[in-house]
Amino acid sequence: MRLADAAGLTQFGVNELTLPPGTWSSLRHWHSHEDEFVYVLQGSVVLVTDAGEERLGPGDSAGFRAGVRDGHCLQNRSDGAAVLLVVGSRHDEDEGEYSDIDMRFTKGRYQGRGRFVHKDGSPYQGTGGATRPGGPVLPAGVAAAPGCAVIGP
Amino acid sequence: MRLADAAGLTQFGVNELTLPPGTWSSLRHWHSHEDEFVYVLQGSVVLVTDAGEERLGPGDSAGFRAGVRDGHCLQNRSDGAAVLLVVGSRHDEDEGEYSDIDMRFTKGRYQGRGRFVHKDGSPYQGTGGATRPGGPVLPAGVAAAPGCAVIGP
Repeated sequence: MRLADAAGLTQFGVNELTLPPGTWSSLRHWHSHEDEFVYVLQGSVVLVTDAGEERLGPGDSAGFRAGVRDGHCLQNRSDGAAVLLVVGSRHDEDEGEYSDIDMRFTKGRYQGRGRFVHKDGSPYQGTGGATRPGGPVLPAGVAAAPGCAVIGP
Repeated sequence: MRLADAAGLTQFGVNELTLPPGTWSSLRHWHSHEDEFVYVLQGSVVLVTDAGEERLGPGDSAGFRAGVRDGHCLQNRSDGAAVLLVVGSRHDEDEGEYSDIDMRFTKGRYQGRGRFVHKDGSPYQGTGGATRPGGPVLPAGVAAAPGCAVIGP
């Protein structure tokens, strides 16, 4: 649920994201130009970064500073739904990488020019590769994270 | 509680704000350059804008777009505490006005140059007038809203 968009805001996104049991917010990734922030409203998630794993519950939060090349994701390993509020700034120069797979996302996704590519810059076959709108199909068990804009591949 | 600051983020603020019974988030105000967003975590508040009054409860949210000259504030008229998550972007050109009193706040508060002044630009006597850090004493019954940076006079 894109709450900030619904209110006509353009400078940052605020998204209420429900993660059913077994799903992830995204693949582990980092952003070059955008700060990102997550607040747990309900349930329990596991934050995964280079530092390891940390369990977050209601009222816990975590921030991810632009340009820090430490990928993060949130995984719901519990039996119940987890609900997160995800805040992210918006910067058309933003790009970034997925830490654990051969994929990165390119600049310009707010103008529809963003693409998922291999880390060497070559495109993914068969996906079209657009990051937003109309991103590629998600792998099984991976939920979309609207605030992250890093769904895929 | 300045959650985004604590995480080292600089592009927006995220503040968990507890309003005891009888307190307000701020005086009614608007921002020239900063989008602002409020999500109710707990309790009940009354949103006051030019459109009138609206009660918000847990899970409700509201956004205030930069440059829209419709002042807002959130008032806790209930018997219990209300807890809000307040998100605001950060723009040094930001300035704004208080809708219901003869006061506005000037540009530059992130560099310590912001001031509270009368709407004709004349300073408040006796307050020093700095908006941040070390803002003036709050009027009785008005709580500080860290995300708004519009406490006072």
